[in-house]
Amino acid sequence: MTNIPVNLAERSYDICVEAGSLANAGTHLEPYASNGRLFVITDDNVGKNWLPALEAALSEKGLNVVSHVLPAGEQTKSWNVLEDLTDWLLAGGVERSDTLVALGGGVIGDLTGFAASVIKRGCNFVQLPTSLLSQVDSSVGGKTAINSKAGKNLVGSFYQPSFVLIDPLVLNSLPDRELKAGYAEVIKYGLIDNPAFFDWCEQNSYAVLDRNSDALSHAIAQSVTAKAAIVAEDEKEMSGKRALLNLGHTFGHALEAETGYSNKLVHGEAVAAGMALAFGYSVRRGHCDASDAARVEAILQSADLPHNLQTASVRASGKQLIGHMLHDKKMSAGTLPFLLANGIGQTFLAHDVDLDDVARFLDAGS
Amino acid sequence: MTNIPVNLAERSYDICVEAGSLANAGTHLEPYASNGRLFVITDDNVGKNWLPALEAALSEKGLNVVSHVLPAGEQTKSWNVLEDLTDWLLAGGVERSDTLVALGGGVIGDLTGFAASVIKRGCNFVQLPTSLLSQVDSSVGGKTAINSKAGKNLVGSFYQPSFVLIDPLVLNSLPDRELKAGYAEVIKYGLIDNPAFFDWCEQNSYAVLDRNSDALSHAIAQSVTAKAAIVAEDEKEMSGKRALLNLGHTFGHALEAETGYSNKLVHGEAVAAGMALAFGYSVRRGHCDASDAARVEAILQSADLPHNLQTASVRASGKQLIGHMLHDKKMSAGTLPFLLANGIGQTFLAHDVDLDDVARFLDAGS
Repeated sequence: MTNIPVNLAERSYDICVEAGSLANAGTHLEPYASNGRLFVITDDNVGKNWLPALEAALSEKGLNVVSHVLPAGEQTKSWNVLEDLTDWLLAGGVERSDTLVALGGGVIGDLTGFAASVIKRGCNFVQLPTSLLSQVDSSVGGKTAINSKAGKNLVGSFYQPSFVLIDPLVLNSLPDRELKAGYAEVIKYGLIDNPAFFDWCEQNSYAVLDRNSDALSHAIAQSVTAKAAIVAEDEKEMSGKRALLNLGHTFGHALEAETGYSNKLVHGEAVAAGMALAFGYSVRRGHCDASDAARVEAILQSADLPHNLQTASVRASGKQLIGHMLHDKKMSAGTLPFLLANGIGQTFLAHDVDLDDVARFLDAGS
Repeated sequence: MTNIPVNLAERSYDICVEAGSLANAGTHLEPYASNGRLFVITDDNVGKNWLPALEAALSEKGLNVVSHVLPAGEQTKSWNVLEDLTDWLLAGGVERSDTLVALGGGVIGDLTGFAASVIKRGCNFVQLPTSLLSQVDSSVGGKTAINSKAGKNLVGSFYQPSFVLIDPLVLNSLPDRELKAGYAEVIKYGLIDNPAFFDWCEQNSYAVLDRNSDALSHAIAQSVTAKAAIVAEDEKEMSGKRALLNLGHTFGHALEAETGYSNKLVHGEAVAAGMALAFGYSVRRGHCDASDAARVEAILQSADLPHNLQTASVRASGKQLIGHMLHDKKMSAGTLPFLLANGIGQTFLAHDVDLDDVARFLDAGS
């Protein structure tokens, strides 16, 4: 078991990574069960696999559980579902001292966290992330959101959970494609500022993707530790430090927008291709050795992840992709910052990027 | 001009009370106009009277203003209007560094503040409250909300404005009934912990209700100072200190619920009757002299405000009213705390109130 603290003054909390911890959820979550009860929110995919086990583990400790099962999929991160969820919670007598339990991937975690932040101006919530992507990224750091007409995650809050419980064993029910997509975000932490962890990934991709419990636990704990450190330094994306977590995301969001945020290219796959593009563009700008960009392409290729526009199946022009980027919510005062790299583990935020040059780079068939 | 600081560490801000300040809004708001622009949200009642003046004052300083006029009334604090407002802001290219301007009463302030708290996980907002109730209460302290099926203000956030600009002269367009209702909350600050201010109110009710600018400015500045001090001590209603602001509100909410949150009894009127009931019940419990409760009734009566169930036109049984109270969002761990008083300016939170006894008190025709 690894316990990783997220240091945020009075909003501090722990992240526990432990194989088999879902079966011991009663022990882990008992301290958060105000009035002896918990409100569990999940989706029908995850619920089918893991809700009975969670309910049994909580009941074993005498906790009263009420569960709400939502349709799986991105469309659940909507205004309508948020309103229905808050209505369900309020009808169930939820109080500020109560705790919501998000059992699921990023959609369930983002939606439940947002609901927790607005119910009676804020109740508690804990995360039990069930996808690799949510275990290493979205469950840590307190970003909550729903989607709106104008785009993804444009409405939400910064709201920290009280606790995050990560069980790598639940990944056994995760489809291969989602496991690989989540692994792209694991690799990202090596690329941002930890070349030794990138080396480890190069040597252990096979074990991680083969769902070796020790390899997964190590990859998750390293990722969570890296993210927790960045979030502790810059909780609300004010200093630019937290922006480092978006490596590959500006290019990636453009690819997701171009493919309609569909199953053609899921988020982690878009981030994979986006990271390769960020390194490729860093080479073009003279920041980075071509050999480093080649290592990035190679590890993504070995994990069967997209690593350029072709493998991401995107045929749009550079200008079209730039158009998508300009809708990115991280724009500030009309400028578009880009995460580029001086090498593996040496990511930095560039504010002087010429969008026409990025378009030419993309058109060159990178 | 009176500048009142609200001390909340990195969320600190100033409240400026100044007769005629709306005409100088350009000077006051220029520092908050990121990219030289402001997004103004108002309602059709207030907009008719004050939006042209505000737009002129802002344009005079070269600021770019886009305005959104919503229907006046409580039904505007809804999920649908919130979604539409965020869609309008996002379509207008709102960024995190932008500032929303809430020009209106509590409905516009609560809705705009909530929208600001969730747009891209938080942009800025300033309050220009236009009713006495919002000037002395809802614009100060960062409570934002919408209503939901289960009740009023059950969905929202704690989110502080960057600045509050209060112009007592805008009250010249406020109907008499709303002015009186707002005055109930002014009297409340005297009753909570400031007997000298209560004395002042007893001597100056006529001047305040006659819209004497000096009297109004004093009443507003005193109220805002009192509220700011309490909010600074207990921003998120954790210690019980902020709960003191709810004097008269537990009884009052029951009266509002019984009259369907309608024009039969507006919020300030319900609070007026609620404060009289809280003092009456404090006498019954032996906390407070009957002469103090009589002074409370007298000042409310002289201001033509409800001061018991009869003058509030409520004929429900005590049991029915208790039923409404049990839906109150301030319940914690199943108990219902009551604000009672040992005398004028000596309010305290009682956790040992017997609801059956409250019902008997209400049935006794208090």
